[in-house]
Amino acid sequence: MKDISDTIAAISTAPGPGGIAVIRISGPASLAVADRIFKCAPPLPSRRKAPALVFGHVVSGKETLDEALLLIMRAPKSYTREDVIEIQCHGGTLCAQRVLRSVLDRNVRLADPGEFTRRAFINGRIDLVQAEAVIDIINAQTELSAKIAMEQLLGRLTHSLEDIYKILLDSTADLESALDFMDDELPDTFIPAKVKRLQKAKDKINALLATWNEGHILREGALVVISGKPNTGKSTLLNAILGKDRVIVSPVPGTTRDIIEEHVVIGGIPIRLTDTAGLRKSDCAIEQEGVRRARSQIGMADINIYVLDASVEIDEEDRSHITSLDPARSIIVFNKKDLGIKADASLIDKYKVISTYAIAREGIVEVTKAILNKLNLKKSAAHHSAVSERHRQILSESISSLDHSILLLKSNKDSMLILAAADLKNVLNGIASIIGKLYQEDVLDSIFSKFCIGK
Amino acid sequence: MKDISDTIAAISTAPGPGGIAVIRISGPASLAVADRIFKCAPPLPSRRKAPALVFGHVVSGKETLDEALLLIMRAPKSYTREDVIEIQCHGGTLCAQRVLRSVLDRNVRLADPGEFTRRAFINGRIDLVQAEAVIDIINAQTELSAKIAMEQLLGRLTHSLEDIYKILLDSTADLESALDFMDDELPDTFIPAKVKRLQKAKDKINALLATWNEGHILREGALVVISGKPNTGKSTLLNAILGKDRVIVSPVPGTTRDIIEEHVVIGGIPIRLTDTAGLRKSDCAIEQEGVRRARSQIGMADINIYVLDASVEIDEEDRSHITSLDPARSIIVFNKKDLGIKADASLIDKYKVISTYAIAREGIVEVTKAILNKLNLKKSAAHHSAVSERHRQILSESISSLDHSILLLKSNKDSMLILAAADLKNVLNGIASIIGKLYQEDVLDSIFSKFCIGK
Repeated sequence: MKDISDTIAAISTAPGPGGIAVIRISGPASLAVADRIFKCAPPLPSRRKAPALVFGHVVSGKETLDEALLLIMRAPKSYTREDVIEIQCHGGTLCAQRVLRSVLDRNVRLADPGEFTRRAFINGRIDLVQAEAVIDIINAQTELSAKIAMEQLLGRLTHSLEDIYKILLDSTADLESALDFMDDELPDTFIPAKVKRLQKAKDKINALLATWNEGHILREGALVVISGKPNTGKSTLLNAILGKDRVIVSPVPGTTRDIIEEHVVIGGIPIRLTDTAGLRKSDCAIEQEGVRRARSQIGMADINIYVLDASVEIDEEDRSHITSLDPARSIIVFNKKDLGIKADASLIDKYKVISTYAIAREGIVEVTKAILNKLNLKKSAAHHSAVSERHRQILSESISSLDHSILLLKSNKDSMLILAAADLKNVLNGIASIIGKLYQEDVLDSIFSKFCIGK
Repeated sequence: MKDISDTIAAISTAPGPGGIAVIRISGPASLAVADRIFKCAPPLPSRRKAPALVFGHVVSGKETLDEALLLIMRAPKSYTREDVIEIQCHGGTLCAQRVLRSVLDRNVRLADPGEFTRRAFINGRIDLVQAEAVIDIINAQTELSAKIAMEQLLGRLTHSLEDIYKILLDSTADLESALDFMDDELPDTFIPAKVKRLQKAKDKINALLATWNEGHILREGALVVISGKPNTGKSTLLNAILGKDRVIVSPVPGTTRDIIEEHVVIGGIPIRLTDTAGLRKSDCAIEQEGVRRARSQIGMADINIYVLDASVEIDEEDRSHITSLDPARSIIVFNKKDLGIKADASLIDKYKVISTYAIAREGIVEVTKAILNKLNLKKSAAHHSAVSERHRQILSESISSLDHSILLLKSNKDSMLILAAADLKNVLNGIASIIGKLYQEDVLDSIFSKFCIGK
């Protein structure tokens, strides 16, 4: 159990050169700390009404650390519902660190990643789904992912889940009161009505589950891995897709030694594009390591692009690489089509094949279209929520339990009602744990560990 | 001439993942923009007293872009002395950009780098030396550089310069009134008294000039370049100095192709350490480019470290490389001393030689000590200002003009007084242009172009 009675602080802005940095302090000692390290015209920060914005200087003993603005917010009207102080000082690496250090010298603890948002959840300002939206907003790389995350923060997914929760809660209550009066005959319509309601809840859960693929791709980006034998033009293809010269391209085979991951947005979808070391046998230890990493990337890819030199015939090595890939998630590129095409596409007829001349950027539009096609995202994502992997797991288990309880109810045996009710309680607990009505510390730990420090 | 009548905006926090981002808006339309894009409980932002801190949502039409805090500051009590609005929203790449875009849609212009600070200068809140301190604070990499920059922002360097300015102004005024009454005989003590005062100003300017070396190193970091023939252990030496494994070290000659710059603080001094491609003739175009870049780095270095394999004799190639280096700013490292030392240090007796066994980190402390020794920084830097390259140029010219005017005065010819007074006016203008009492747009352009956007 996290101690939430102490006062925590962290730099809340991104590290690196910038005009402004913000140090956030939350907890009962916030205002007392402000009184000690912030010099301003009277009254003292702790004597001021909140919210307030005050000009002044951050001091450490006799030394002035920086000119700064002080933001004062009092519980419960703050991000964490605790007393919160924010110091806005000069950006850059060191200035904010010196201010933070002088705060931490006053019996304040450095906040864990996501600890401010965790307190906002624990103190009931937001639910768990909303807390998760905060990190999605920060990590959003496309308009679409930012919009969906914002909708989630404002409560859209919470609303859908509360809706399902209510149906299940009513049904469970009805079943339980039926159990209390077991001696009475149940009306004929009772069971069918319950089954219908549960079916409705199941449909709603399935609708949420169907948004997982979008959620996964919008949050993490789709991983597109370019592989192929050395010198077939993998790096050139990557550059052509990116539209800039990021990777050093040279005619010496074996130039690309490390996995390079580039982020690009294609048709509103975030793509993580990686260019692997050429897949060839090599005695060079550095290259062998590169090939090992390439194989591991290929296994994790949402989409694999395998590049061939179209001017030579497909050999056994290429065929064996290609047939190890899933046709539904793979694109075969015949590059160097300007040299004439000798490769025979009929040998790999289950696969989408595109001919390119990557240096001249010919065929690149077709490749990006094929990527979007294979990802198969529903356009409707803009209009609904997109559940996360954590949600997907719980919702999938809920479907199983729901199916089981419906089966039990349909058996129409009174003795089965009690078991059905038990199943429904499991489902209820699952939904409750998504929203955070019920939670375990280790679940919170795993959610908030993905946050940056300072949020 | 920059238009300062319009309203400007920028993201003021560093880019990248972080909990909080701040969008700053300055100019006459700031409050009107806030009214349009920020939804909060009444009254409207423009109807509120300032400074004020308000909770609410940033909106774009019907869409909610983010939950946010609004900071309201009114002219002249703001960073720029104009009406300033700051929106504190979620961090990360996209969220702040969406908020900024909705601000820019309201007839607000994206701020140039440093434009907020430039306005603070133009509007008379800070002088030019203080404005320059802002970027030094943001870029500070060590305690010492942060302290000196903060002292400069608080006015210490301004104070020294104003002091010199006042001496010069008084002397010039005295000379000019003497010129007005040329018919009267000047008292015998007049010229010697003036010369003494000017000598004092000169001493003060020289004292400031002496801080330039510290200033340069504290601001930009000392550039330490490691060079030598391939496979002598340059990357290993760099890793040993850094104390971590940053560069891939492999026994294949020619592994390090690009210039890699690492930042490390040694004895409180920021060091930019670079490891160059091995200096060898090669037919490989990529390596040739590396060697070309290495030579250019060697020319710019504050300190050069030339690495030899101690287990073989010094050949003609090594000697010719070494003798092209300045002994006062070079350190020769005999690496691989574990294999026995065959290299003969007497061949290069003008140079500081240190034997190391870099893999085992033997001799590394001696190397870092030698770096600090060669940099020859005065400890006193902590207690005074450190002038920049711009200041150094103007101060050097001032010394020449001062010397000239002293010479003219000493000639004791009345006709020379008028020339001496003209020289002094040049010096006065120089000091005025450091502080910014006098300025030219192109000087401001060059100063503020070094700033980040948003400051």
